[in-house]
Amino acid sequence: MSFNLATMLRESALAQPDKDFLRFPGGARTFAEVDGAAGAVAVALRARGLAPGDKVAVLLPNVPEFVVAYFGILKAGLVMVPLNPLLKAGEIAYHLADSDARLLIAADAVAQEAARALREVPAVEPVVVGDLDTGKWPESVTAFADLLAAGDDGELYPGAADDTAVLLYTSGTTGRPKGAELSHFSLYMTCTIGSETFGTVPDDVVLAVLPFFHVYGLSSILNASARNARTVSILPRFETGAVLAAIERDRITVMAGVPTMYHALAAADSSGYDTSSLRIGSSGGAPIPEQVLRAFEAKYGIPVLEGYGLSESASTATVNPGADNRKVLSIGKPIWGVQLRIVDDEGTPLPPGPEHVGEIVLRGHSITKGYYKRPEETAQAFRGGWFHTGDLAYADEDGFVYVVDRKKDLVIRGGFNVYPREVEELLYRHPAVAEAAVLGEPDERLGEEVVAVVSLKPGGHAEPDEIVAWAKERIAAYKYPRRVRIVPELPKGPTGKITKVPLRQSTADGPGRG
Amino acid sequence: MSFNLATMLRESALAQPDKDFLRFPGGARTFAEVDGAAGAVAVALRARGLAPGDKVAVLLPNVPEFVVAYFGILKAGLVMVPLNPLLKAGEIAYHLADSDARLLIAADAVAQEAARALREVPAVEPVVVGDLDTGKWPESVTAFADLLAAGDDGELYPGAADDTAVLLYTSGTTGRPKGAELSHFSLYMTCTIGSETFGTVPDDVVLAVLPFFHVYGLSSILNASARNARTVSILPRFETGAVLAAIERDRITVMAGVPTMYHALAAADSSGYDTSSLRIGSSGGAPIPEQVLRAFEAKYGIPVLEGYGLSESASTATVNPGADNRKVLSIGKPIWGVQLRIVDDEGTPLPPGPEHVGEIVLRGHSITKGYYKRPEETAQAFRGGWFHTGDLAYADEDGFVYVVDRKKDLVIRGGFNVYPREVEELLYRHPAVAEAAVLGEPDERLGEEVVAVVSLKPGGHAEPDEIVAWAKERIAAYKYPRRVRIVPELPKGPTGKITKVPLRQSTADGPGRG
Repeated sequence: MSFNLATMLRESALAQPDKDFLRFPGGARTFAEVDGAAGAVAVALRARGLAPGDKVAVLLPNVPEFVVAYFGILKAGLVMVPLNPLLKAGEIAYHLADSDARLLIAADAVAQEAARALREVPAVEPVVVGDLDTGKWPESVTAFADLLAAGDDGELYPGAADDTAVLLYTSGTTGRPKGAELSHFSLYMTCTIGSETFGTVPDDVVLAVLPFFHVYGLSSILNASARNARTVSILPRFETGAVLAAIERDRITVMAGVPTMYHALAAADSSGYDTSSLRIGSSGGAPIPEQVLRAFEAKYGIPVLEGYGLSESASTATVNPGADNRKVLSIGKPIWGVQLRIVDDEGTPLPPGPEHVGEIVLRGHSITKGYYKRPEETAQAFRGGWFHTGDLAYADEDGFVYVVDRKKDLVIRGGFNVYPREVEELLYRHPAVAEAAVLGEPDERLGEEVVAVVSLKPGGHAEPDEIVAWAKERIAAYKYPRRVRIVPELPKGPTGKITKVPLRQSTADGPGRG
Repeated sequence: MSFNLATMLRESALAQPDKDFLRFPGGARTFAEVDGAAGAVAVALRARGLAPGDKVAVLLPNVPEFVVAYFGILKAGLVMVPLNPLLKAGEIAYHLADSDARLLIAADAVAQEAARALREVPAVEPVVVGDLDTGKWPESVTAFADLLAAGDDGELYPGAADDTAVLLYTSGTTGRPKGAELSHFSLYMTCTIGSETFGTVPDDVVLAVLPFFHVYGLSSILNASARNARTVSILPRFETGAVLAAIERDRITVMAGVPTMYHALAAADSSGYDTSSLRIGSSGGAPIPEQVLRAFEAKYGIPVLEGYGLSESASTATVNPGADNRKVLSIGKPIWGVQLRIVDDEGTPLPPGPEHVGEIVLRGHSITKGYYKRPEETAQAFRGGWFHTGDLAYADEDGFVYVVDRKKDLVIRGGFNVYPREVEELLYRHPAVAEAAVLGEPDERLGEEVVAVVSLKPGGHAEPDEIVAWAKERIAAYKYPRRVRIVPELPKGPTGKITKVPLRQSTADGPGRG
């Protein structure tokens, strides 16, 4: 019954040793090369005294070394803790301490923040990817390249399927970041069944510009590609020209993105690039506005299927089952083996219909074991035996699910529920609006008032009051935004999706409202 | 991360509620019907106070109630203990006591032996399938039909993937029967990946004449069919006329059998039956003699792929990868995620080549957690971290594995290794021989002597001495059987494969040798 998630890489390397697993600006690595290098990392980590269950944090962008480190950690029976390389020193230190990390594998480029963090948690030994400038790091530093020297012994630690493979930090619905424990089994199941449902084929080449440290990039892209011996085309960051060039160069067939990427690509000048290899796209991370979906599909001639997942569900929990069976703007249906309910505040399942909006709760093979060292928050999230996502949705008669909003984003104005996403959908249809975020702001009389922050299209012109008036004509009186603020660009999280936290702070802080 | 193996049935029932899951003499049951009935059994078992992890023994032939009971037990988070309905009272009592069974679901037809067994383990409550004659049973008896009354509440117990789902009794390589603990995860993986490798398709209809209480019937047939929403055609016992009639009636496409079944079908008069629906066959349980394979394939026009598995590997550990890539007489290659080595007595892996015969050892997702309450025997079987099968084999340069014999069946004659299977292969080529078993018998001078027990084809004539002389001309002097005994039929185990234990006893007891 033993199982190691790195079996996916091993089996692909046995079946297709010379096929490219990773393509990246400037090179490529075959399955056999990555498997062998990961095996060498496992040997080196064991030789340093790390024992099964020990945590290794990784602070890297999308580079081949991320993949080698990841599978090396898994092969040795250790637990991977992927961190966002844009974190600041205090945040890095928090994650290292909270996860009980014994080692940190980091890019030399983040030396300044990482080294400051390591002063707070000096027991953590750094391993550096890239040109190692030892002067920037603690004395215990090792070059990642040195880990590869010992060579592969072919071992895969034979742990239990339920053992934790990845500790994935997430804010969850509330509070400080918590490490969601994802097992070898959960990660295997969700990437295997997610791929089947999405309908990928062996010859697909998948774009990997979404960060591997995020569940979407780690599970739906990296794990799924290792599982199915598919080639991934790696980019360290999103930039439309680089993505279009990679599509042409690597003959990418599957585009995996978040709505802001589809928005940028729909607006980009793609005339100089051959994108005819594209076959299908997936969108997740946030609801994709219909205008964005239609514009991208029209421009690139491929369907984009929406799905839904969380760190706590090892990525894909629902997906639209194929281009012929999809319902646009729905997140589709739960994948095989995942049970989904939409429940009221008492946990009672709600009937179908858009009037029955409730919280999505999940159960099944994909779902986290819980939050590391946080039994109370785990119990709260799993009350009644179901994982509470904090997302509000309804289902239709066919079982397709429509996300209405985040539970915490819900605005209650004078007793009426306003779902910001619905108002954002409207604002995206305004001819001058590029991006929109709607949120609630404390209001003495109404409890909350509806406000919007938008950015404008290049060459677009609009005044806040015009937008308010435009919206007022098109949506119920209790829903339209009373105030609109125009900003050059909306703040984005690590995957590129719009994040409302800084907007809330800035609107709460007062100045600059339109 | 929770997982319940009954998810397979639930998902098939959601996707194809009205498709036939079970066809049997006199009726059929859809996926929704079986799922609902199993759910009702789970409700009833929980209502009787059984708690997750409790054991429920099942003593049934291949009848629809076996399937309903099995998935009901799983849904409630209980552990299934399938027993051979041909067991005698003492054996039943041993299994009930050893497994700590709380309940026994048995056929009314086995009342005599079962009731005697229950007097030895009176805490076990009987549940009877069929026309319940209460006079034959202890007072605590319940009719299985009564378990169905409460109806399904839709619950699947959300246990861990590594929880034990089935306790499968096996003699293993030595000793009294031991319960191999198979987890929800192992049983899921092996049937899913085994089916993929074997190449079944959604419209296949699978013959289920191999007993469900045996790992081959339970995992490769029943679980795999539930997983893939395939129809199974159930027969309670093997008889060539009934099998041929079922093939015609249910349009069976996949034949799953053991060598003796293929032998019987190759010899049967099939002229009155339409068997054109057959597409492919699988053979396991014992090595199939080449003569039998060729004769069956020629007669029915379909390929038969050999595989290999054990109770301890949740069935399929290796299989020939498709009709175009097979090697006849090889058991194929390990399935995805199963690691196989051929090792010497010190556990050192051997190089390929027929001269390098060693023991097959296994590791991976399919392998048992160990033997229930037998830490020493578990440790012995898993020495060096690999499960020791007791089977002798070699691999070729392409990684295809050839089973030479059971380690315990090996005959050492005057210091030379004689593999009975090789001698049996020869005897099957004798024009009058129908079945053959070769074994060692104690010999003062040589340590062991090679002897054979054979049955003859209908109308075949041969004397023991003739067969000895015929073999002597065709095989090395140290290998040919010095004594041949002719019997009407060779003894068979529960799946129909030839079992040598009674032959050993009878040759050791002396009389009747040829």
